Amino acid sequence: MVATDPFALTIREAGASLREGTLTATALTESVLARVEATEPALNAYITVTADHARKTAAAVDAELQAGRDRGPLHGIPFALKDLYDTAGILTTGGSSFLRKRVPDEDAAVVAKLNDAGIVLTGKLGLHEFAFGTSSLNPHYGDVHNPWDTGRITGGSSGGSGAAIAAGSCLGTLGTDTGGSIRIPASLCGVVGLMPTYGRVSRSGVLPLSWTLDHVGPLAKTVEDAALILNAIAAHDPDDPGSADVPVDDYTSELGRDLQGIRVGVPRDPFWLECSDDVAAACEAALETLRELGATLSEVELPLEASAGRLSIIWTEAAAYHHERMRESPEGFGDDVRMALEGGLAIPATSYINDQRLRRKLIEEVSAVLKTVDVLASPTTPATAPPLSAGDPQRTLARYTFRYDVTGIPAISLPCGFDAEGLPIGLMIGARHFDEVTMCRVAYAYEQATDWHTRRAAL
Amino acid sequence: MVATDPFALTIREAGASLREGTLTATALTESVLARVEATEPALNAYITVTADHARKTAAAVDAELQAGRDRGPLHGIPFALKDLYDTAGILTTGGSSFLRKRVPDEDAAVVAKLNDAGIVLTGKLGLHEFAFGTSSLNPHYGDVHNPWDTGRITGGSSGGSGAAIAAGSCLGTLGTDTGGSIRIPASLCGVVGLMPTYGRVSRSGVLPLSWTLDHVGPLAKTVEDAALILNAIAAHDPDDPGSADVPVDDYTSELGRDLQGIRVGVPRDPFWLECSDDVAAACEAALETLRELGATLSEVELPLEASAGRLSIIWTEAAAYHHERMRESPEGFGDDVRMALEGGLAIPATSYINDQRLRRKLIEEVSAVLKTVDVLASPTTPATAPPLSAGDPQRTLARYTFRYDVTGIPAISLPCGFDAEGLPIGLMIGARHFDEVTMCRVAYAYEQATDWHTRRAAL
Repeated sequence: MVATDPFALTIREAGASLREGTLTATALTESVLARVEATEPALNAYITVTADHARKTAAAVDAELQAGRDRGPLHGIPFALKDLYDTAGILTTGGSSFLRKRVPDEDAAVVAKLNDAGIVLTGKLGLHEFAFGTSSLNPHYGDVHNPWDTGRITGGSSGGSGAAIAAGSCLGTLGTDTGGSIRIPASLCGVVGLMPTYGRVSRSGVLPLSWTLDHVGPLAKTVEDAALILNAIAAHDPDDPGSADVPVDDYTSELGRDLQGIRVGVPRDPFWLECSDDVAAACEAALETLRELGATLSEVELPLEASAGRLSIIWTEAAAYHHERMRESPEGFGDDVRMALEGGLAIPATSYINDQRLRRKLIEEVSAVLKTVDVLASPTTPATAPPLSAGDPQRTLARYTFRYDVTGIPAISLPCGFDAEGLPIGLMIGARHFDEVTMCRVAYAYEQATDWHTRRAAL
Repeated sequence: MVATDPFALTIREAGASLREGTLTATALTESVLARVEATEPALNAYITVTADHARKTAAAVDAELQAGRDRGPLHGIPFALKDLYDTAGILTTGGSSFLRKRVPDEDAAVVAKLNDAGIVLTGKLGLHEFAFGTSSLNPHYGDVHNPWDTGRITGGSSGGSGAAIAAGSCLGTLGTDTGGSIRIPASLCGVVGLMPTYGRVSRSGVLPLSWTLDHVGPLAKTVEDAALILNAIAAHDPDDPGSADVPVDDYTSELGRDLQGIRVGVPRDPFWLECSDDVAAACEAALETLRELGATLSEVELPLEASAGRLSIIWTEAAAYHHERMRESPEGFGDDVRMALEGGLAIPATSYINDQRLRRKLIEEVSAVLKTVDVLASPTTPATAPPLSAGDPQRTLARYTFRYDVTGIPAISLPCGFDAEGLPIGLMIGARHFDEVTMCRVAYAYEQATDWHTRRAAL
């Protein structure tokens, strides 16, 4: 891999070259499509590659740029989408056998926004079936493989998104996060994954897993790239019942600001003790870096009840959504998803209701903690990528991430080291509701002080 | 009964006399307390009479009025509360054996508002156990009897509120409405019951039945009295998760305005056909009166799914709230409530979730209808008060009312006639979300054109 291959550029770098005229959207797109061709046999990150569509769009972008029309930072950027996002005229499978031939008529709300921003769509990315799992092992479209070791999982459910960014087979992507599905593959694939506040980005036109927990957000090579994508998609949308009517910020506005005065809360609770030695060492070193950058650290306690597997919400909402399919053709689901849905069908309403009530209490507790600190910092996952043969270690991988989905606060995962086997380790920074600006500021400062984000898998 | 007895006055009339100095709060309160004493043996409307507290408050009001301090329309008005509202230092039972000795430390949010407005609290009123039923037959505190025929039920769950207003044993009251619990007793007792829009009035400090459906609202002798009470309690309250941050109106502002231009939608659907001949005739005559007053009538279709018994929400939320009690001492509940809670415990989460999803669809459908008309008009209940021996004909009594709880739009019930046995009949006027002003305007115009609201039970 040559560092100057266009596919290896960040969104910001590629955008600068496109606007300077030293790179065309067509050349950039061809570089990415060639990369897709080179890496797909090993990775299986894509379910659908839209090469013709991408080439046409790139040509149109070049014409626009030559005519002086600049749509902004995403104009001309090769972009792929988790195959959970409706794309007008383009197959959208949800990773499910039920939707093998489903071609939506309309774009999801965020896809329309990205198209308006001028992305070049290169295709639809692999995922855990219906986003209901954390391995991205998929019996219908094949397993997604980790670029750092193709014998390992990418994590999930946005596994194709993590793999494609890590491999350079797209420059930007959207995943979805219900229990950790953006941040887990970001951590395991050594890229940046950003889950915004619940309600910040519309889910309209995105296949649901659990609508009181589902979040839309970007994966990209750097914090700045993720913030640029968030800028393009953050908005209120009355069509999404969970959408929040809260003013949108410029999420790049405090990138580059130092960390003087920033208070970092460290939830070094029982869960933390479960993580592998390499992960623990890398995250402790990252905390030390934050301190050196001017932040102050303090121990905080987060509620332990909000951990994966303790709350019935995902299982019950998913079972409600897939109710008809479970009644009519349960054999269409993969074994793991079918078993999880069977479990969800058996849960009494009172459990669901009481879990949603517990959740309001947890939100209050986490909000109280975030009055004493500005951000939270912890490992993203307790371990690096497990072998494909390990199946779906959901409870372990979502151990730290799920608390953020349950309480709706934003969180970002970014690379903070490698274990003894050369597998990436993720650092997670969380923040107050709708304070993605401070979250990105802290993550960016850490990123700029280290070079983990510049390392690429030798594919 | 002498028409000039102070207990027989409306809130507006009594307030005018208090301010003119032709009546003292003490004399008014003594009249009401005497009326309580005279009627309670037959009605059992009260669980707790706070005579000493009322006399002390009345004396303080008289001192304030003499000193020129006027707190507004409710100042000095004898007022009683459904025994579901927390009152600091005063027994609050919820009509339940579990809470026989429960004395809250704090007032409910709306009780604090009423106290600030200067009410004279005369006591706490009977209700269906935990508000979970429509008969107000109560095995723990005795059945509430209908003033128009003490061998008949008041309806419920705010049965004590309906009986006390009809009998003159208080001038104003608050009930709660989850499936019809304000409007049903208003209809069966021949008084006015107003359910505001969901989220308009705080439920903080009110024992919940089903928090996604519970509404707080007044019962009173007239539309104007109900509007005056609503003026005192309508507000946003961050302590109530269902509270809406929507500006408050003056709900008396369009009383007296004519009905030119008002479009009345009439849902003369299959349900309508089930009502008794007397009820049908009275409501058709009421529609004709509205037309004579300048309104135009048109047929509309409301979604039938939103009818009582079809949705699991009340049962499941109530079972979630009473979960511990059902596990530890189910024998503490009355038979009907225990059976309903057992039913709720057995409902799967997927039913609850799908019912809440269906609800969003119903809200859209009703909102679409309310783009074509300004208000809805129908009978409140399909029949007049059944005998005590009939038990709890919940499905029948809540037939028309529940659609308003499910979709969250406001509705008011007011007297529109009597059946062959001299029992009152109720007319229900519904309106758009947060348009209580138009609802009150239409109800007031009808009331002023008729004299049903001036008739009193011969007790």
